[in-house]
Amino acid sequence: MKNWLNSDLKDNDIVITTRIRLARNIKGIPFPDKLSDDEGRDVVKKIKDTLIVSNDGKENFTCIDLWKNDNNCNAEYLEKHLISKKLIENYNRSAFILNKDETISVMVNEEDHLRLQAITAGLNLEEAYECIDRIDDKIEENLDYAFDEKIGYLTACPTNIGTGMRASVMIHLPALSMNNEMPRILNALSQIGITIRGLWGEGSKAIGSLYQISNQITLGMSENDIISNLKTVVEQIINQENLSREQLMKKYKYELEDKIARSLGILKNSVILDSNECLNLISNVRMGVEIGIINDISKKSLNNLLVNTQRATLQEIYNKELSKKEENIKRALYVRENLR
Amino acid sequence: MKNWLNSDLKDNDIVITTRIRLARNIKGIPFPDKLSDDEGRDVVKKIKDTLIVSNDGKENFTCIDLWKNDNNCNAEYLEKHLISKKLIENYNRSAFILNKDETISVMVNEEDHLRLQAITAGLNLEEAYECIDRIDDKIEENLDYAFDEKIGYLTACPTNIGTGMRASVMIHLPALSMNNEMPRILNALSQIGITIRGLWGEGSKAIGSLYQISNQITLGMSENDIISNLKTVVEQIINQENLSREQLMKKYKYELEDKIARSLGILKNSVILDSNECLNLISNVRMGVEIGIINDISKKSLNNLLVNTQRATLQEIYNKELSKKEENIKRALYVRENLR
Repeated sequence: MKNWLNSDLKDNDIVITTRIRLARNIKGIPFPDKLSDDEGRDVVKKIKDTLIVSNDGKENFTCIDLWKNDNNCNAEYLEKHLISKKLIENYNRSAFILNKDETISVMVNEEDHLRLQAITAGLNLEEAYECIDRIDDKIEENLDYAFDEKIGYLTACPTNIGTGMRASVMIHLPALSMNNEMPRILNALSQIGITIRGLWGEGSKAIGSLYQISNQITLGMSENDIISNLKTVVEQIINQENLSREQLMKKYKYELEDKIARSLGILKNSVILDSNECLNLISNVRMGVEIGIINDISKKSLNNLLVNTQRATLQEIYNKELSKKEENIKRALYVRENLR
Repeated sequence: MKNWLNSDLKDNDIVITTRIRLARNIKGIPFPDKLSDDEGRDVVKKIKDTLIVSNDGKENFTCIDLWKNDNNCNAEYLEKHLISKKLIENYNRSAFILNKDETISVMVNEEDHLRLQAITAGLNLEEAYECIDRIDDKIEENLDYAFDEKIGYLTACPTNIGTGMRASVMIHLPALSMNNEMPRILNALSQIGITIRGLWGEGSKAIGSLYQISNQITLGMSENDIISNLKTVVEQIINQENLSREQLMKKYKYELEDKIARSLGILKNSVILDSNECLNLISNVRMGVEIGIINDISKKSLNNLLVNTQRATLQEIYNKELSKKEENIKRALYVRENLR
């Protein structure tokens, strides 16, 4: 699997990442929300030990205990999409285990005892599933999962019960957004058990035309069916997006070029830049790269901007607690320096 | 005198041009609006002949008869501020006489038979007056002006009677505009007989923070008093503008730098650019040059953009009748190419 931040996707690839997550719990231990901090940390230790035993030496795992970090450090992992808000909420008893190229992240004591995640660049559902399934099998050899023969894996929230699997794809849909087609698509997909959310997960708005498309149903379907279902839907949406782009370029060639060129001009020149505007400008430039209007900027550098212009990461880069205004100034500075 | 388009003003000079105009009429001939086209062209011939006789050989005059030009050509002279809309309205019987470096323009059969104008770069009221006064004297040696001993020069419109003089200064006031101080200033000045108008004269809005400040009163004051009055007022306004800029830079340093830098970014990158936005962006960049934030762009190139991004001039440059959309595309192209 390729780390999405370091891999240079093809210019016309509008899927940014693929992510598969499996929710698992240890038999006989209450779900994380019912645990005291000490009990939670015991679970962390148990899982750490198991993973070391289970690991065939292939993966170079690091375990990060959230209670040992400062807030900003944990927020940075969130901004990289390696951990969730919920894991941070439980920081007194939560941890996560990361492989070296940050394509595997195992959250401990999020909503469930284990959230096994594989994250890879582009549209690669099968590859991501194979990877996380292998790790899941290894762990299961050494740990008793809460499992029911009829239902499947038991989880804290009933929406995850069964396979415990959430497969999701982060995709860039600027043309469908501009054409206001997203509400129609969202409505259609919800009827077939597929969800679309914004960049930062549940409840977040779709800023920068970035969407996460994922399966809603985890019960009564096999993992392979979930994946092939989602893949079909994503491929259809890719086609619709590409069609919309072609139509836009046919009808509004100059307007689109203007929007893209101005966005790049503003990114290269602004002195104050707030997070949402930044994401929207990056989206326009990304579309410029994807449709071949911009040729001297890589997807990789845009992905890096996406992550590194977030608040906590900026604070880490500039090694300083930033006020809102300072944050916007540093963001503009970072973007200017990294687009030159 | 220096042609304002070719002279490179000091960076901190916020006055762009000084203009003095004298309204004169020939004794015994009705005002232009009462003339037939043939009678009007007789006046043009009379004035041409007089100017050639009066000219001491110093000035290399060219006479342009408006009825011989196409509309776009005349519109171009308007955009260069060499002639007025009224002169173009009378195109069937109007003409203008221009010296080589376009600092003197004598309009024939505008509202009056003669409108003698001197146009120079920066704040140079005395120099401009001396120049146009010398030409006026020379003409008067060979032509009987309509003149009343008590009142002074007689003009078609009573607002010009007396000296027939309008002294005006084109000035760049972005900080006073941003601070919404212009209505207050406009009101105060009108009470002392001074008018402020937008870039394109009477009734025009102040786009791009460019204003023309001129005397309203032509009667009962000497030419020198009018000039020294106006000069005092303009110097006060310059002080107020500079004070406003300092305050803005103190209170909103980053916001101001952001506005200026983004404006330059948009000018260098846009693909569609309408006239008003262009003027406003040029104004922001001009302020950047004036306060020393931008160091690699000359006032001269900004003045050229000011004139050459106007519709008729663009049509001349690209040698083509342009639709509104094409005009905005060519304007963006011209700006991009000339700011690189």
